Amino acid sequence: MKEWITGRNPVYECLRVERRHFFKLLINKSSSAKGRMEDILKIAQRKQISVEAVDKNVLSKIAEHHQGIALETSVYPYTDINAILDRVEQSKNPMFILVIDQIQDMQNLGTLIRSAEIFGVHGMIIPARRAAGITPAVVNASSGASEHLLITQMNINQAIDELKQKGAWVVGLDMDDSAESLEEINLDGSLAVVVGSEGHGLRRLVREKCDHIAYIPMMGKVASLNAAVAGSIALYRAAVNRKINS
Amino acid sequence: MKEWITGRNPVYECLRVERRHFFKLLINKSSSAKGRMEDILKIAQRKQISVEAVDKNVLSKIAEHHQGIALETSVYPYTDINAILDRVEQSKNPMFILVIDQIQDMQNLGTLIRSAEIFGVHGMIIPARRAAGITPAVVNASSGASEHLLITQMNINQAIDELKQKGAWVVGLDMDDSAESLEEINLDGSLAVVVGSEGHGLRRLVREKCDHIAYIPMMGKVASLNAAVAGSIALYRAAVNRKINS
Repeated sequence: MKEWITGRNPVYECLRVERRHFFKLLINKSSSAKGRMEDILKIAQRKQISVEAVDKNVLSKIAEHHQGIALETSVYPYTDINAILDRVEQSKNPMFILVIDQIQDMQNLGTLIRSAEIFGVHGMIIPARRAAGITPAVVNASSGASEHLLITQMNINQAIDELKQKGAWVVGLDMDDSAESLEEINLDGSLAVVVGSEGHGLRRLVREKCDHIAYIPMMGKVASLNAAVAGSIALYRAAVNRKINS
Repeated sequence: MKEWITGRNPVYECLRVERRHFFKLLINKSSSAKGRMEDILKIAQRKQISVEAVDKNVLSKIAEHHQGIALETSVYPYTDINAILDRVEQSKNPMFILVIDQIQDMQNLGTLIRSAEIFGVHGMIIPARRAAGITPAVVNASSGASEHLLITQMNINQAIDELKQKGAWVVGLDMDDSAESLEEINLDGSLAVVVGSEGHGLRRLVREKCDHIAYIPMMGKVASLNAAVAGSIALYRAAVNRKINS
């Protein structure tokens, strides 16, 4: 299976990380080879990837937001949970993992991947079924951060059980009577942050497995934060906590 | 000028806040009047708004994400900066304002509005030219939070000058050599947070007017957070700071 990654940052990160196979690079024949485009062409040359200058229309047929570039690659290189646990061990820092319970919106999933990579998680777990996988649209929304992050697709309840066995403290983001303010929870040990779906939050079984349910203090009149923003705030809070206390 | 607001939360918030004129409500004739839809129909009846049950296709022609509902309204009710400053005075809390310097993406602008409303800003200032205004797509992306927030469209440099005259501490989000970690800046006095565009950050003149430039500590390999996430984290940080110290 092959797919097309488009957009300058996504293509650049793909090439830089080298976790996929690369088949072909298409560039808009009227784009100038400056900035990120120049970086991409240099890497493509070094890796001996075939480059074709094409008409803009060819790229528009592949994806709406192509920014003059499309890279044909193998599909997203999912890892298994052991690869993530190995990375935890190698890093010598306490475990820091993001678990996604049913995010549906590709833009939100991409945004969460970007934040997770930036705040230094060891890896991310997404559900095996129903929810969005790491499609080219998600890669694009993550600005290519997906290529750096280790992502496992598996049953979420089973993943949480495994992480708990390895000593993770599991903090789910949600609003209910048992929830504690995010500010009051200590986030600097071995940690898995669980983010639920837009609109419905965490599924019951997943929620029951969490050691803590945390809410983000809100003062406004509308019901809830964007799911990707809420997750990103929790990751930021954890990253700061861990840095200060390490 | 009239426009169509679509989606259950956006329509509900519009009706609830009553800052626009309402002309007509269209609902998908196959939608059941439950949950949010029931709330909407009750308000429409009370306000004597004409309701029409229509075929789904009629709604799809208005907007892609209609969720079975569209409300015809007057355009977005911008306020002037004095209305925001009045709200600051009435609230008896120190000024808390979000200033947007050139966000282009409607999804990001909507997400920032949603976060700003939730974290209790007194108002928001967006540029008069070039950048996105509060279109129905932005209302939708804000999940209707735009209807609660006071938003002024004006020259950003002039707005910052006026806010400074009223005693605001102006904190711009950006990355450069002079930037300080967001965690090290005191955010609990009179405050204006300035968020720059995706990709380019703050414009030079705007940056020079800031009292502080703050960065969000990042540990990953990709270049930067999504602009709406970065802005939301700064607002969260400020909201928590202010709550704890008030």
